[in-house]
Parts: sequence; C-alpha cells; structure tokens
Amino acid sequence: MEVMDRADCVRLLAMRSPAVGRLAVVVDGDPAIFPVNYGMIEDRVVFRSGDGTKLRAAVDADRVAFEIDDASDGGHGWSVVVVGRCVRAPTNGPHLMVLQGTHLEPFAAGDKLTWLMIEPESITGRRVPAVRGWYW
Amino acid sequence: MEVMDRADCVRLLAMRSPAVGRLAVVVDGDPAIFPVNYGMIEDRVVFRSGDGTKLRAAVDADRVAFEIDDASDGGHGWSVVVVGRCVRAPTNGPHLMVLQGTHLEPFAAGDKLTWLMIEPESITGRRVPAVRGWYW
Repeated sequence: MEVMDRADCVRLLAMRSPAVGRLAVVVDGDPAIFPVNYGMIEDRVVFRSGDGTKLRAAVDADRVAFEIDDASDGGHGWSVVVVGRCVRAPTNGPHLMVLQGTHLEPFAAGDKLTWLMIEPESITGRRVPAVRGWYW
Repeated sequence: MEVMDRADCVRLLAMRSPAVGRLAVVVDGDPAIFPVNYGMIEDRVVFRSGDGTKLRAAVDADRVAFEIDDASDGGHGWSVVVVGRCVRAPTNGPHLMVLQGTHLEPFAAGDKLTWLMIEPESITGRRVPAVRGWYW
C-alpha cells in the first residue's frame, strides 16, 4: 500500500469533480453516510444540501469525513479522504460565481438550496496495486 | 427520487459483491470513513480487517454504516446504505467455508485477519434518474 501525498490527493479530487463522493457525519452518536455530488474550490470540497438529516448533521460540524475512491484506475485502486469542519459557503457576490463554476447542478429546481464547504483539516489518500482484485 | 425497498437493496448488494463499499464509523466522536472490499452472506455485509483504527472502531460497535452506490447505472444513480451492529464473524467449521465463499481475498498474506460482519438493523436505498447528471 502506498500513501499518497496531499497534492496528489487534491489533484485527484479536482480531476474527478464534479462527481459523486460520500459524506460521513455523526448523528446522535451514530455514523451516517450520504452520497453527494461534489465540486472543488482550491482544496475545499463543496456540495449542496436540502433541509434534512444531512444538512442538520453537517452544518457547523467540527469534523465531517468525505471520501472518493476508484477500485480500478489503470491497475491501481485508490481512496482519498478529506476530514474537516463543514460550514455554509458564502454565496454573496463573486463567491456565488465561483460556486457556480463548480457546475454542481441540483437535480430538481427548488431543492438543494444550501451550499456547504469543507474546510480541510487533513486530506489523505492511499493507493494499492490491483493484483487479484484489490483489497483494503 | 425513488425509495427502493429492502429486497431491491439486498439484491443490489449481492449482485455487486465482491466489490468495494465504504464503512463509516465513529472514532472519538468524529466520523471516519474507509473503503472495504465486501461480500454478502444472506443480508449481512462481511469484510475483513487488519488491526488498526478501522477494526478497533468497528468491532462491537452498536452502529456502523456501510454504503455502495453507482452514479450511472442504465440511466439511474442509486445508493444503498446498511446500518447495524458490527461483530466478529464466526470462523469455526462450516462458517469459515461460507465466508470463503464470498471470495474476499486479502491482498497481502498475513493481513486482514479478522472477519467482520454487519448485523443489519436497516437496509435502505434510493434511486434517482440521471437527468443532467444526477444529484443527491
């Protein structure tokens, strides 16, 4: 298993976006996991959320975890995990244009009104060769 | 968005396995997320773990969350989430043969010695049409 450095991880996050990742949050002490469409602004993961369990658990959480992976990328499997504080993204003025530049389109109009952003505390990744299928 | 019933979710879990899913656990109050190769025994997710953060956080946890998804499956995106208690899987006698039947091969010999199993409390899923790309 190979540990990827932060720059490689950010590059993979950016290369793949907009795409699907998974957000893990703690709800009443238990883990919960949600798929989200995400985009990147520099080293920050951004995503949109409607009102609900995901938003309530994520907003202002000191630590959420976000993950992307690919099981077979040119003979390797890899995974990148971002851990950090989740905040509402500023949507006033030029910030909104930057957010819109992530091309995160909500599926249904009127849904997913809130832009959220992870301020990364750590961005880590690992890569394994896909011999006999790969295995974490 | 369409809610899938439990039988559809279990069918998707089984159809895809052995494959990669993501395990979310709580570590010192914070969410952590790990990719794992998983297999199914009836409605139970099984996976293997070496010693480490994942194993310590998962074993005997009252609630872990496990997720698989596909962003573009014949015009739809879908996600299935299993929530339940995580226990060591029995490996004596016939149980070991059943576990081996999941074809979960460890990548490196000597690693991933412990078989873990999620006793499902809930298995839920949802499906969205992939119009303009899909969006959760």
